[in-house]
Amino acid sequence: MFRDSRVTSHVCLTARALGADGVVIADQEDKVVESTIRDVTERFGGPFRVTSGEPWRKTIREWKDAGGRIVHLTAYGLPLPGLMPQIQQSRADLLVVVGSEKMPGEIFKTADWNVSVTSQPMSEVAALAVFLDWYHQHDEFDRNFSEARIRIVPSKNGKEIQEVAR
Amino acid sequence: MFRDSRVTSHVCLTARALGADGVVIADQEDKVVESTIRDVTERFGGPFRVTSGEPWRKTIREWKDAGGRIVHLTAYGLPLPGLMPQIQQSRADLLVVVGSEKMPGEIFKTADWNVSVTSQPMSEVAALAVFLDWYHQHDEFDRNFSEARIRIVPSKNGKEIQEVAR
Repeated sequence: MFRDSRVTSHVCLTARALGADGVVIADQEDKVVESTIRDVTERFGGPFRVTSGEPWRKTIREWKDAGGRIVHLTAYGLPLPGLMPQIQQSRADLLVVVGSEKMPGEIFKTADWNVSVTSQPMSEVAALAVFLDWYHQHDEFDRNFSEARIRIVPSKNGKEIQEVAR
Repeated sequence: MFRDSRVTSHVCLTARALGADGVVIADQEDKVVESTIRDVTERFGGPFRVTSGEPWRKTIREWKDAGGRIVHLTAYGLPLPGLMPQIQQSRADLLVVVGSEKMPGEIFKTADWNVSVTSQPMSEVAALAVFLDWYHQHDEFDRNFSEARIRIVPSKNGKEIQEVAR
């Protein structure tokens, strides 16, 4: 539910790096972003799914029908620290919905949780990042991606990339 | 040090919401972003400074000359969890540098700390968000902005905005 390909890419890369299993880019098909993200996943590892173009109502209905729950990140919601324990305890598959200011009002009623990462105008990329960091209890720093062809070697002040033997 | 106004806005809004005192948009003057951010600050409160157009080397040199320190957020750096204690203990004024993949290599040597929020291709908006959330020990959820004219009232499933009496 976003319009701008650059920002959509930021959302997708953030989701992948911080431990989501995949992204659904709703309503608008975006083959450019899809192929950017697939390319990153092929080089740096996965698994990570990306699809685009499905109407958002359909995505959400099917998610709920399968027993999943919906988190909607919005500055208007209740603060993250209070809601995080029950979201983690629910143990359901989670669909995290982010978008621009132009989100349809309906989503506020459909979501199981409307969650705010500050009650300030912010970035959905930032909100998603903080949400995932908390939700996964910071395990993105220990995460391994499967079938990576290259990986970045942490470095004090250089750029080091290593090919992964397979 | 970014080129895209939408992403620059995301960086600025994230910086403000998560407790930075201001932003410097280096090299390129961007009056559109400046006025967007000033407008948000006027409505939702501050203080928050925004300037643009100064060459990045000048910004960094003056910052260091004044005793400040530089954090550079990059996927190539050392992981955040290991570096955060010494960054917090330094107690110096901190300039957090974020940018796109096209950052000049020089910045890696100039920075006091090259910090990674995952060693994966990600978003500078996301990296900044996680960095500030950790650096400020999650106090963005208790932060008050001065001289706000309006504020969002956290809500379970609606949009509630309140005018602030002054």
